[in-house]
Amino acid sequence: MKKNKKEVTIYDLAKELNYSPSTISRALNNHKSISKKTTKEIQKVAKKMGYRPNTIAASLRSNKTKTIGIMIARINRPFISSLISGAENTARKAGYNILISQSNDKYENEVSNAKALYDSRIGGLIVSLAMETKNLDHFKLFIDQNIPIVFVDRVPLEFNSYRVIIDNYSAGFRATQHLIDQGCKRIAHFAGAQHLNIYNLRKKGYLDALKENGLEVDEELIMDLETMSFEEGKEATDQLLNMDNPPDGIFSSNDTAAVSAILCAKEKGIKIPEELAIIGFNDDPISSIVEPALSTISHPAMKMGEISAQKILEHSVKKLDSNISEITMLDTEVIVRNSSNRQK
Amino acid sequence: MKKNKKEVTIYDLAKELNYSPSTISRALNNHKSISKKTTKEIQKVAKKMGYRPNTIAASLRSNKTKTIGIMIARINRPFISSLISGAENTARKAGYNILISQSNDKYENEVSNAKALYDSRIGGLIVSLAMETKNLDHFKLFIDQNIPIVFVDRVPLEFNSYRVIIDNYSAGFRATQHLIDQGCKRIAHFAGAQHLNIYNLRKKGYLDALKENGLEVDEELIMDLETMSFEEGKEATDQLLNMDNPPDGIFSSNDTAAVSAILCAKEKGIKIPEELAIIGFNDDPISSIVEPALSTISHPAMKMGEISAQKILEHSVKKLDSNISEITMLDTEVIVRNSSNRQK
Repeated sequence: MKKNKKEVTIYDLAKELNYSPSTISRALNNHKSISKKTTKEIQKVAKKMGYRPNTIAASLRSNKTKTIGIMIARINRPFISSLISGAENTARKAGYNILISQSNDKYENEVSNAKALYDSRIGGLIVSLAMETKNLDHFKLFIDQNIPIVFVDRVPLEFNSYRVIIDNYSAGFRATQHLIDQGCKRIAHFAGAQHLNIYNLRKKGYLDALKENGLEVDEELIMDLETMSFEEGKEATDQLLNMDNPPDGIFSSNDTAAVSAILCAKEKGIKIPEELAIIGFNDDPISSIVEPALSTISHPAMKMGEISAQKILEHSVKKLDSNISEITMLDTEVIVRNSSNRQK
Repeated sequence: MKKNKKEVTIYDLAKELNYSPSTISRALNNHKSISKKTTKEIQKVAKKMGYRPNTIAASLRSNKTKTIGIMIARINRPFISSLISGAENTARKAGYNILISQSNDKYENEVSNAKALYDSRIGGLIVSLAMETKNLDHFKLFIDQNIPIVFVDRVPLEFNSYRVIIDNYSAGFRATQHLIDQGCKRIAHFAGAQHLNIYNLRKKGYLDALKENGLEVDEELIMDLETMSFEEGKEATDQLLNMDNPPDGIFSSNDTAAVSAILCAKEKGIKIPEELAIIGFNDDPISSIVEPALSTISHPAMKMGEISAQKILEHSVKKLDSNISEITMLDTEVIVRNSSNRQK
């Protein structure tokens, strides 16, 4: 096979010059947001490194394909695979393909996934953020190229883009209210990473439900779980059940940790729901298989995916400017099963 | 934004001329396997449609990126997500990225996924085939461009490529032998789509274990399941348990249908494992959460992914010819749990 000289990309320039790819791109296009000095510096190095801004390469790149990229944290979550199915069904009907990449909740992976999808000349991007992600510069390049981005579920607080979310605050409130309605007085909470909107708002809903019902907030009952894994769920439950005054209810921000709590409590001979009522979040398939079956909050995951893809298709057809800010908020449902239902 | 004229691809030519992309590519490169007449016809139309074989576009395309494409049937299977994790860990260590696409077991989707990944200029491809796939022409283009393909788990019987599989025959034999060792005499089998190597070999193992132990093969006990879903598992179990002479054991080719069998039998008041012993396949997380916990066959899914990525990396480093045929076969393990363990 013939070997070709590797094309110099704006990523190479960004690395060399220690600027963001977005800054490089703007400077090369003489964008007014970049200082004259920086623009000059970048253009000089670009020339030296053999960057070709006006080649067919560049034109090809701006010639987007009928592919939508999806960046998510982990594919092995039923919520995520339903979301992807929804997006994929909608996309395929319009003749679009889907390419997926996962970050495993690592910021660094998310950045390189963004690059790989950008290089694939996708026509739009659907993103659910990694746990670690706080800086969003790796998405600016898409906006500059007018490639629409839809953030879904785990979304940034500020970023001009489409956002599709559920009402996490209300879901957290109603999950907690349900346990209170079952007679729980000391309700523990498994809280996820608080810089993420979804976990932060669920916790706020929990706190407000307690307050509105005149129940005391006991900080010792709020367990900070980093990844909401099965193992973390077990540790947290162990700790709670070893307290002098253990809780009589648990609201977990996901089903994985809640199922772990059920198994752990059963092992200790604690009666569920009589002595301990438990509710999770997501309605994963596992929640109806564990015994007793887990009460939970159901997400309209499939619909979130459909709407996300729809936003991209509409944006592309209407040739909208990607500097847009639009939030779609969907409702959730409390699903009552035997892990919390004391009125049987 | 500036609009650019859409590049004419060999896919456009293939569509126009009704040849395979692979034939188009060979004709444009004057490959000796294509007749002079066809070559002339293709080159004429290519010129007319404005195809530019020697542009930077073509050079860019053959300039592969550090991305490995993964094509699988469905991401929402624990076995598949472990396999992807394994490939991803190995790839990232070598500075490679992963892009994933799912076919939902549809041939048509698999073909368009192959195109999207080819257009992304991936450096290698890992594939587990869709249930529907019988024709493999959509993979020839990769071979022509010396982009290595590793088929994994669901692999074609014939195709010059790398293949990474488990010993499905032996696994099926040992699962059945285990039920026989527990005293089962009438063992049913949930068999998947028989044109796929994995299901076909598991069934062969089942049949041979029965024969070797002097047990009769009763065709009525072999249930042909199309997708091995939860619903199909329930239907099959219903049908089996309504027989005049119901089975005393079930070997299911996956865990999903086996868990469904457990729940269905329990509902009918049948004692597991005393009256009905059940073993599944895959060791999905669900298998240790259902009660009684499900005996199963564990796959080295993570390792299969690691080896698959390793093959691509080695191939790329050593600049091997992609016209290669190499099979790696890994072993499985019988995991005995309460759904089949009668010796407690």
